[in-house]
Amino acid sequence: MAHIKLPEGLPGIRGPMAFRPETAKPLNELAEVLLRSDNSLTRGERELIATYVSALNDCFFCQNAHGGLAQHYLQCDMNFIDQVKVDYESVALSDKLKALLAIAASVQKGGKHVMPQQIEKAKSLGATDNEIHDTVLIAAAFCMYNRYVDGLNTWAPQDRQIYIERGPRRAAEGYIDFDLYK
Amino acid sequence: MAHIKLPEGLPGIRGPMAFRPETAKPLNELAEVLLRSDNSLTRGERELIATYVSALNDCFFCQNAHGGLAQHYLQCDMNFIDQVKVDYESVALSDKLKALLAIAASVQKGGKHVMPQQIEKAKSLGATDNEIHDTVLIAAAFCMYNRYVDGLNTWAPQDRQIYIERGPRRAAEGYIDFDLYK
Repeated sequence: MAHIKLPEGLPGIRGPMAFRPETAKPLNELAEVLLRSDNSLTRGERELIATYVSALNDCFFCQNAHGGLAQHYLQCDMNFIDQVKVDYESVALSDKLKALLAIAASVQKGGKHVMPQQIEKAKSLGATDNEIHDTVLIAAAFCMYNRYVDGLNTWAPQDRQIYIERGPRRAAEGYIDFDLYK
Repeated sequence: MAHIKLPEGLPGIRGPMAFRPETAKPLNELAEVLLRSDNSLTRGERELIATYVSALNDCFFCQNAHGGLAQHYLQCDMNFIDQVKVDYESVALSDKLKALLAIAASVQKGGKHVMPQQIEKAKSLGATDNEIHDTVLIAAAFCMYNRYVDGLNTWAPQDRQIYIERGPRRAAEGYIDFDLYK
């Protein structure tokens, strides 16, 4: 049971978003800019960073909701997503994206864990300042979303297949002006 | 030196905000709703929660910028703010606010660290669902802002007095439509 009385039947972050629409608005706008707006990182790459950080924070809802989106955009299967969480170095991803995932993992531990060598490596593999900025902020933002979802003890469906099936619809609706109840 | 090339002379979060105004907009709107809009928690109480979480995350800029605001609103001195960081139980604060600070400290560790007993205690001391929601989200949001500021290795003035002197101006300007360069 959630720690506060939330509208019923809404999974994960959707409960607190319906409870407090004033904060839902900027939270959704931030997700839209970071994860969907024009960027040299693809939507799939950005959702993968979000999924990875959510897994590090052990947030079941976020890692599956965003994992379902990453799977949709990257046209991969669940095993691929799970392997990224366990050992992204062993997965067929660009070296640049691996360097950005390493930065994201450091941000998850705390901002001061990001080392100059990690930044230099990412830059040497072609990462731009904007890509590094967005990686740091995506990782930081999911340290917020994950804590919001679990800190209120929200409910979430446990069948992972549900999130995968919803991926295409979530990709089509985006993070703004969607119907919380659908 | 910051990890990416940021506009010069802007302290803390202001550098990355000038670098990427698209993400600055929702980040500032979130701060405005959480820390300044109408609420049964005072602005001083909310800035104190933000300051405390920023101290737990060891973010020098955020704990001093928001500490300066808390000090202004609460009309207290720097020793009071520092004592809250070290041992808020020993400070003259309401029992309700102490219960909310305990929840915030758990959120800082991770969402799942929030215990039902902490929530029950806060409710028994008069905390509303909205106050608990906002405490959780303020704490979660500062786990983001702190990581953003330190994950990019931003510059910040080291003289704590500067932040205290700027408190009243920051309180007057708010988090939206202020001049980043003033």
